Amino acid sequence: MRSIRVFAPATIANVGPGFDIFGLALHEPGDEVVATLSQEPGVRIRAITGDGGKLPLSAHNNTAGVAVIKFLEHISATQGVELTIHKHMPLGSGLGSSAASSVAAVVAANELFGSPLQRRELLAFTMEGERIACGAAHADNVAPSLLGGFVLIRSYDPLDVVQIPVPDFLHCVVIHPHIEVRTEDARKILRRELSLRDAISQWGNTAGLIAGLMLQDPGLIGRSLTDAIIEPQRSLLIPGFDRVKKAAAAAGALGSSISGSGPSVFALTTQLQTAKDCGDAMQKAFQTVGLKSDMFVSAVNNYGPRILPAE
Amino acid sequence: MRSIRVFAPATIANVGPGFDIFGLALHEPGDEVVATLSQEPGVRIRAITGDGGKLPLSAHNNTAGVAVIKFLEHISATQGVELTIHKHMPLGSGLGSSAASSVAAVVAANELFGSPLQRRELLAFTMEGERIACGAAHADNVAPSLLGGFVLIRSYDPLDVVQIPVPDFLHCVVIHPHIEVRTEDARKILRRELSLRDAISQWGNTAGLIAGLMLQDPGLIGRSLTDAIIEPQRSLLIPGFDRVKKAAAAAGALGSSISGSGPSVFALTTQLQTAKDCGDAMQKAFQTVGLKSDMFVSAVNNYGPRILPAE
Repeated sequence: MRSIRVFAPATIANVGPGFDIFGLALHEPGDEVVATLSQEPGVRIRAITGDGGKLPLSAHNNTAGVAVIKFLEHISATQGVELTIHKHMPLGSGLGSSAASSVAAVVAANELFGSPLQRRELLAFTMEGERIACGAAHADNVAPSLLGGFVLIRSYDPLDVVQIPVPDFLHCVVIHPHIEVRTEDARKILRRELSLRDAISQWGNTAGLIAGLMLQDPGLIGRSLTDAIIEPQRSLLIPGFDRVKKAAAAAGALGSSISGSGPSVFALTTQLQTAKDCGDAMQKAFQTVGLKSDMFVSAVNNYGPRILPAE
Repeated sequence: MRSIRVFAPATIANVGPGFDIFGLALHEPGDEVVATLSQEPGVRIRAITGDGGKLPLSAHNNTAGVAVIKFLEHISATQGVELTIHKHMPLGSGLGSSAASSVAAVVAANELFGSPLQRRELLAFTMEGERIACGAAHADNVAPSLLGGFVLIRSYDPLDVVQIPVPDFLHCVVIHPHIEVRTEDARKILRRELSLRDAISQWGNTAGLIAGLMLQDPGLIGRSLTDAIIEPQRSLLIPGFDRVKKAAAAAGALGSSISGSGPSVFALTTQLQTAKDCGDAMQKAFQTVGLKSDMFVSAVNNYGPRILPAE
């Protein structure tokens, strides 16, 4: 039967001040999904590699499975899809692992059925995948993974997703320390109320980051990468966080913060080499608290998912 | 003695979601200040017109007086300044009346002394004027009045003021109903805590408004002109507010909200004629609750203060 293989990128959600509203796509890492047309309706997961056996093979409990089930329902498909999921990034890392899998799966399924929907129209299904993965239909990983670039989710109800042009100079480094933080736990520790004063500072920074990206002003981007609300709470779950942040700043980062719900920490820079230098410094800082880590360096990925040659 | 006459524009602070961080300048109304060099050090206020006798003539208690006192101290002036202030807009209207006077006064004084400081360097002194007028050194009226255009105050500590380019199509109408709301009272009614959920919606909208202005996307500007936090509280002080807002929407406004701390209500539109139509509809809505009002229609004023020919 016909098969389609798709890569979908990892993402940095929140990007400093933009809790639940900002995300950006990386060139690497990312997941690959092979979708194969099946005469049997519905979705089956043939195999998952790279997850150490942690992810459910039942399609109804799997983020990619659920996303494709919703897609097939929407297009009233009479045929089904079999999925093979290749995880190329750590689970629970704050890199949007579940989002990358569901985006790759839905893009592949859409292609398999002759692209009845536009990329943007696939967002709703990938968000249903997120609901399975972390209990809420977030868009701040799936939207940038699906659409590429830097994405603002202005509103969830109704959903309003805006693509923000980013300067060519912008580079990212993400350091993933070898501890796991569950998205659900990272959300549970957050206070449900905040002071008006802190909120004002945060909306100044979200507005500032958009302005900095669009004015291509590295100084403004850096000053706006300030999160006085979520980062102080969540960083408690990341040993050595303050040292890592200081190391990034000393190595020339514009700014740094937690990637998604952590434990990965990202930094933004104006050059590829600076991103590597920051990454080295951040890894060393994690070592001082006994943590090994992975490093991913990338420009912003403005393309999103890629259809790959058949295996 | 040598005199300088300066006009400084009225402003819309907050501009929907941007409580304390956004402001924009209008072409009218605005205040005029005549500054005259004096051999006697310090600041004296010769006269104030248009205020119905409400504003203090003591320079130390007057917003424009205080701003010029701070300016003269900064430049270590040995001569003094006499001020004549012509108020051309209502007090306590939410149009930045005190800001316009202090900006006009400081710009005139700076010109009088041969422009020792750049426009942007005058901001600190005008903020001291605001401290006298409303108890806190806000910048969301003085910054746009001084610099022109649409201004983001990303941070107050340290002060970080960013000018945001606005599309040429953007027009404003401001309706000032004939009731007075004191800035202090309008601040007192605000809750000091808010829910994380509301804060997220607000920072989505502040980011969205900046993106909408810079992408020149009228739909996004309109959708972002949403304030779920301050407007519901302050609109209680403005009779007929809901009707006025609905009237603006029905007449084609992109969006509308309270100007500054009110009671004025503004709407943004894509055309001059639509701004006038919205203004007519909003005035009629205020009439239904027995309120007379003034209307000001203007494009965004990208120039800020103007030095006028001598009288």
